[in-house]
Amino acid sequence: MTELKNDRFLRALLRQPVDRTPVWIMRQAGRYLPEYRATREQAGSFMKLCSTPELACEVTLQPLRRFPLDAAILFSDILTIPDAMGLGLGFAEGEGPRFARPVRSAADVEKLAVPDPEDKLRYVMDAVRLIRRELDGQVPLIGFAGSPWTIATYMVEGQGGTSFSIIKKMLFDRPQLLHALLDIVARAVTAYLNAQIAAGAQAVMVFDTWGGVLAPRDYREFSLRYLQTIVSGLTRQAQGRKVPVILFTKGGGQWLEAMAATGCDALGVDWTTDLKDARARVGQRVALQGNLDPCVLYASPERIRAEVETVLESFGAGNGHVFNLGHGIHPDVDPEHVAALVEAVHSASRKYHG
Amino acid sequence: MTELKNDRFLRALLRQPVDRTPVWIMRQAGRYLPEYRATREQAGSFMKLCSTPELACEVTLQPLRRFPLDAAILFSDILTIPDAMGLGLGFAEGEGPRFARPVRSAADVEKLAVPDPEDKLRYVMDAVRLIRRELDGQVPLIGFAGSPWTIATYMVEGQGGTSFSIIKKMLFDRPQLLHALLDIVARAVTAYLNAQIAAGAQAVMVFDTWGGVLAPRDYREFSLRYLQTIVSGLTRQAQGRKVPVILFTKGGGQWLEAMAATGCDALGVDWTTDLKDARARVGQRVALQGNLDPCVLYASPERIRAEVETVLESFGAGNGHVFNLGHGIHPDVDPEHVAALVEAVHSASRKYHG
Repeated sequence: MTELKNDRFLRALLRQPVDRTPVWIMRQAGRYLPEYRATREQAGSFMKLCSTPELACEVTLQPLRRFPLDAAILFSDILTIPDAMGLGLGFAEGEGPRFARPVRSAADVEKLAVPDPEDKLRYVMDAVRLIRRELDGQVPLIGFAGSPWTIATYMVEGQGGTSFSIIKKMLFDRPQLLHALLDIVARAVTAYLNAQIAAGAQAVMVFDTWGGVLAPRDYREFSLRYLQTIVSGLTRQAQGRKVPVILFTKGGGQWLEAMAATGCDALGVDWTTDLKDARARVGQRVALQGNLDPCVLYASPERIRAEVETVLESFGAGNGHVFNLGHGIHPDVDPEHVAALVEAVHSASRKYHG
Repeated sequence: MTELKNDRFLRALLRQPVDRTPVWIMRQAGRYLPEYRATREQAGSFMKLCSTPELACEVTLQPLRRFPLDAAILFSDILTIPDAMGLGLGFAEGEGPRFARPVRSAADVEKLAVPDPEDKLRYVMDAVRLIRRELDGQVPLIGFAGSPWTIATYMVEGQGGTSFSIIKKMLFDRPQLLHALLDIVARAVTAYLNAQIAAGAQAVMVFDTWGGVLAPRDYREFSLRYLQTIVSGLTRQAQGRKVPVILFTKGGGQWLEAMAATGCDALGVDWTTDLKDARARVGQRVALQGNLDPCVLYASPERIRAEVETVLESFGAGNGHVFNLGHGIHPDVDPEHVAALVEAVHSASRKYHG
C-alpha cells in the first residue's frame, strides 16, 4: 500500500497534533453534485450504483476532485446488510427504501444469518479495494455501517420515515425478540466493518441515525449496548496504523459521556450540542467530529465562513477536532458553498494549531 | 365562575403538594378517539372544527368523558394566528397545513399586524368561554399557542414537514428580517394568550415544536428570546389564582436551564431526557411536565403500567410533576391503552405524595 500523503484526519481522530483542522462532509458523495446525478442516472438505480464497484468508486472520488477534503468515505448504504440477509430491498422512486420481507416474528429472526462479507457483500469490499487503489494515498478512506438499532428499525418497520410504531411495540412487548435481532445485526456489522478494514478502510464510522428517538434507558439497552459490542469486536490496527472508530448518534447530545465510555476514538456530534460543552463533558477520552448545521450551506459564502469560525472557536485550541456538518448535506445545496466551507475550515483553523 | 373541583394540575405546576400526580395528554382531543373522528367528519374540515366554538368545545370535552384526566386543553391549532394575519391557511387532505401567501420578503413582513384576539380570533375566545361554562369547574382549562419560532417556520416555509431550508437561509442571511417577523408574532402570541386567560384559560402552554432544529446559539437568539418576551408579557394572575405558564421545546432537553430562567412555571420535557436529571438541573425553579415515550401506548396495558411507574420513579417523591407524554399522542393508539395509562398514573403515584 502507498504511503498516506495527508493523514490529518486520522491524526485528529487520535487527538494528535495537526497543522489545521481536517474536514470532510457527511454524504459528500451525493445528489448535490451534478456529476453524482449523472453517474446515478447512468447506473439506472441506486442499488446498482452501490453494488457496482467501479461506479461506487467513481462517486466516492467525485467530491475529492472538486474540494481539498481530508478524507474519502466509501459510497454505500446502511441497508446493504439487511439486503444481504435476504429481506428484499427495493427503492420505489421518490419513496425511499422498502423491504419486501420485514422482520416481525421469532420465526423471521431465526431465519437470519450473519452474511459473509466476502461473499454476498463482496461488491462492497471490492469497492473499498478499488477506491484505495485509485486514491493512491491522497487521503484516508472511511468505511462505515449503520448501527444495529438503526438497521433494525428499517428491518422491522419495512421502510423509513415512520413513527417507529412497530419496532417500539416490539421493544416494549417483546424485548427479548428485539435483542435477538439486534444481536445478529451487531455481529453482522462487526464482521462487515472488519472486512472493510481488511480490504483497506483506514477508519470506520457507525451511523446511529435513529438512536435519538429512544428514551435514555432504552437508548442504553437497545442502541448503545450494541454499539459497545461492535467497538469491542473491531480490528483496531491495520497496516501498521491504528484504525479509529467514530460513533455518531443523531440526537444523542445528551448521551455523549456514555458513548465515549465504549472505548471508541471519536464521537460525531450534531449541531444541537455546543462543541465546547461536549468537549468539557467527554474530556480527553475521545475526539469530536462536527458540527455545523447543514442548513448553513443555504446561506451566503460570507455567512458560511462566519459560521465555520464559530464552530472552530467553539471547539477551541488543541487536538481532537474533525470538522464536519452535524448531519448529511442536503441535496439542494450549491457545490460552490461547499467549496467556501472547505476553504474556510482550512484557512481559519490554522490559528488553533501549534 | 364556579369553584374548581380538581386543582391538582394547577397545584403541581406551582410545585404545591397534591394527593397524586395529575395527568393529561398532549393532543388528548384527537384522532385516536372515534367520537373525535365523527365530529371532525360532521364539521367537514379541520379549520371548521377549530373555528366553530360548539364543535371545538365538544371535542375538548370528549376525552374527559372517557378518562379521569386532570386538565382539559382547548381544541385549536397553532396556526390560527398566521391565519388571522391573512396568510391564507389551507389543509390539503392528507398533506398537512399550507399557506397560500408565505412570508419571504421585508414587504411581506411589513404587511403583518397583530390580530385583535377578540375580533379575528374571537372564535377561539368564544370556545374558551363555552368550554369553561361546560366544564363547570370539573378540571382546569389549558390555553395554548405555538412559539414564535415554530409559527414562523410555517409562515416562511409555507408548509410543515420541510427541511427548514427557507427559514434557515433567512436566519443566516437576513437575521434582522427574521427578528422583525418573530417580534410581531411574539406580540401576537402574547395578546392571544392574554385574551385566552381573560376568557377563562387557567394555565397556558407554549408549544415550541421546532426549537430543537436549531443550534444552541440560534435557539437562544431566535426561539428562547421570544419565549422570554411572551413569559414577561403574560397576565400571571386571574380570578384570584396564579395562571401557570408552561414552555415546551421538543428536542430542547439540552437547554432546560436556560428555559427555566425565563421565569415560566413549568417545562414540558420530551422522553429523550431523564426526569431525574432534568429535575437536578432545574432545581426548584420550575415544575416538570412529561415525559412518557408516546410509543409506549402501542404496548400492552401491563407494559404501559410498568413504563408509567418508571417515569414516576424517575421524577421521584416531591412536588412539581405533571404526568404527560413526551409529545402528542399518535392517532393510531387504542383508547383502552390511554385508560390504562391514566389509571396507572393515579394509582401508582400516591406513594410519591404526602
